[in-house]
Amino acid sequence: MNFELTKTYLDELVTALRARDSHLSTRLAKLHPADIAEIMDELDMDDARVLYGLLDEAQASEVLVELEEDIREKLLEALSSRQIAETVIENLDSDDAADVIAELPAERKGEVISYIEDQQQAQDITDLLAYGEDTAGALMAKELISVEQDWTVLRCVREMRKQAEQVDQVYAVYVTDKNKKLIGVLPVKNLLLVPARQSIEGAYDRDVVSVEANTDAEEVARLMDKYNLVVLPVVNANKELVGRITIDDVVDFIREEAKEDYQMASGISEDVESSDSVWLLTRARLPWLLIGLLGGILGARVIGFYEEDIHLYPEMAFFIPLIAAMGGNVGVQSSAIIVQGLATKSLGMEGIVKKLWKEFTVALLNGTALSLLIFGYNLIFSDSLSLSVTVSFSLLIVIIFAGLFGTFVPLVLDKYKIDPALATGPFITTMNDIIGLLIYFIIGGLMYELL
Amino acid sequence: MNFELTKTYLDELVTALRARDSHLSTRLAKLHPADIAEIMDELDMDDARVLYGLLDEAQASEVLVELEEDIREKLLEALSSRQIAETVIENLDSDDAADVIAELPAERKGEVISYIEDQQQAQDITDLLAYGEDTAGALMAKELISVEQDWTVLRCVREMRKQAEQVDQVYAVYVTDKNKKLIGVLPVKNLLLVPARQSIEGAYDRDVVSVEANTDAEEVARLMDKYNLVVLPVVNANKELVGRITIDDVVDFIREEAKEDYQMASGISEDVESSDSVWLLTRARLPWLLIGLLGGILGARVIGFYEEDIHLYPEMAFFIPLIAAMGGNVGVQSSAIIVQGLATKSLGMEGIVKKLWKEFTVALLNGTALSLLIFGYNLIFSDSLSLSVTVSFSLLIVIIFAGLFGTFVPLVLDKYKIDPALATGPFITTMNDIIGLLIYFIIGGLMYELL
Repeated sequence: MNFELTKTYLDELVTALRARDSHLSTRLAKLHPADIAEIMDELDMDDARVLYGLLDEAQASEVLVELEEDIREKLLEALSSRQIAETVIENLDSDDAADVIAELPAERKGEVISYIEDQQQAQDITDLLAYGEDTAGALMAKELISVEQDWTVLRCVREMRKQAEQVDQVYAVYVTDKNKKLIGVLPVKNLLLVPARQSIEGAYDRDVVSVEANTDAEEVARLMDKYNLVVLPVVNANKELVGRITIDDVVDFIREEAKEDYQMASGISEDVESSDSVWLLTRARLPWLLIGLLGGILGARVIGFYEEDIHLYPEMAFFIPLIAAMGGNVGVQSSAIIVQGLATKSLGMEGIVKKLWKEFTVALLNGTALSLLIFGYNLIFSDSLSLSVTVSFSLLIVIIFAGLFGTFVPLVLDKYKIDPALATGPFITTMNDIIGLLIYFIIGGLMYELL
Repeated sequence: MNFELTKTYLDELVTALRARDSHLSTRLAKLHPADIAEIMDELDMDDARVLYGLLDEAQASEVLVELEEDIREKLLEALSSRQIAETVIENLDSDDAADVIAELPAERKGEVISYIEDQQQAQDITDLLAYGEDTAGALMAKELISVEQDWTVLRCVREMRKQAEQVDQVYAVYVTDKNKKLIGVLPVKNLLLVPARQSIEGAYDRDVVSVEANTDAEEVARLMDKYNLVVLPVVNANKELVGRITIDDVVDFIREEAKEDYQMASGISEDVESSDSVWLLTRARLPWLLIGLLGGILGARVIGFYEEDIHLYPEMAFFIPLIAAMGGNVGVQSSAIIVQGLATKSLGMEGIVKKLWKEFTVALLNGTALSLLIFGYNLIFSDSLSLSVTVSFSLLIVIIFAGLFGTFVPLVLDKYKIDPALATGPFITTMNDIIGLLIYFIIGGLMYELL
């Protein structure tokens, strides 16, 4: 049933949609909600609304969850709070329901919740909404299957049958004691292997990895990755089982994080996609460009301060872009390695001094190689020894400085709980540009006096 | 049982290890293989070897899979091909086994496989090794649970009990026809809900998403993400079920891809981590720096060509870093948006011309804003109208050019099956630097003649 959205398919569908084709709703009923969402993301809003109206209630709710946020927002605006509660929320799992409600304007949230008939669901959603963004609590769903440690396999299966009606997918069965404290996990496989009348006592695994609800989403992702988990139980401070996180939600989180880091490194300050409006794209890019502009102006001031030198030795101007660019490049490289290490907690255990020392040796090696190359080039193509020495020596110093600075800044940002990925953005590049120019002109001044 | 590796823990462990503490192997037996791997990744090789020797065979194999590649390689070097086959491979699932063998030197691969006693496993591994890297076939495991469409629930459970012994985790039960063709998936939950004597005919889901073994890993990741799948069945060209991919392997792939893109955008040309050797880190960073150096030299040539202008109007030199940096920044921003869109297949359906037009409007907006700002600045702080006009007008042109170039290049690279992320690396930045300088000096020359 693999579905592929093509331009032809889309055009044909829009024609049918606008012609109010009566077979369309039967056709749509056969599609996966994620496919319908993919189609709707490509339609203009009016067509999307008409299509959405053709879906039955349960399917419509599933589609809504999969849509891009801006379309979902517009569709929900057209519904009353009562309609949202009764036709959307009640068809969703607690985690998806909470996500949908979290996006609503503040004044509508309580209203929608008050219209939810199922009191348990309303309570679950209220609980989930209380957790901070990007915590285990915010990622988890309340629906799960749990059994008690002294039950027989038969009783487990019977209870699971009841619970399974509320749960979409069964990946794990949690084992608790009488007080709902999590004490183990029962692999579905073991249920098949143990005789029905036997207690599960010997069949469940006591080594269960769990997280508390306030654990960072990043830590959740790291643990699930490390232990190759598909589902992770969440407990409260009393170790009572309160929910479970499935890997698909964590994958979304991992992708979002990677995208954020990547965008930050590329100088984009808001989460945008190429399909976003020109206005949004412009707004996401302007802040970093403003920093770049400010950097450029400061750079101009630095060079202006040394205007005399340029008058005397105009060839010094030739290598301004080289010095500025190399400082930026080295800075971004060293920051990126640290940012990545922080994100995956793979930085190792040595302290900041050892890291700086390592970066120093790397920078020294790279710097020496590059300085020798540019020295050779200048010896051949320039007749000024002063210039050759200035460019090479400055380049070496700039590379070492930029490497150390690029290592130091993300570590410090991280220490003060600021996203270290900021360091890979144009901020560091710009700083390194300016400091690089300063180093260049100071050394240049000295060289021309000395040689 | 949440484990956290601290410096104190590690020091204490190393002491016990070197003192040949006899309790250590009991302690280790209680740890999760991933935790032991995490410990070993921090140890030096001699300690790691001693620790590895304390593990029992099954645990040792699991640990081996979780280790970093360089340590695994060293441990395997010390084993004979027969030992690898009998003590390692036979304890592993087909996908992990194939991964381990794939890393061995070419001459050992066949040897190890020939020592595997279980003929079925040997065949499975040979099959898996034949698939190209980063395809569904390379990601999948052969172990899975499948039932036939006309079986009763009871028969399914009985057969599954047999098959489950070979499968680590049961996430889905696949339904095939008599010819092993995949026709559906039976959620574990439905097995619990349907009476034992009834056929599964009405209980399985016919809408099963599957991939062929030669499908790109990127497409696998996209499908699993889109449909929120935890496990995805793999079929051959005849639609016969040949394996299944679990999400944890795909998460690894997603992380690797994101890391690669991020490193490429940061100018790092090999997959490195901060814990790698100075030599490796230097080697991973030098290539991009060489491109930067070359760009700097070309930039110097461009400026050298306009040396006369700098003699006449040295203040033109002031804004060289600004023009160069802004071209680079805008180019990286626009490339990043395209690269990201290509990676997630979210670019939308409009053609290249429409994309360039959109980028043009974004660049025009940003460019106009920034040009006006720098014009204002120069009006106040510089007494040269020519300079003010030159800088502002060049900046506008450079921003528009860099935006279009940054959009165009990754699209073209992708068309020719080259990784578009290359475009966000220093290559584009460097190109934009040079072209920016050219534009600046050409416009500068014109302005000083005109005004």
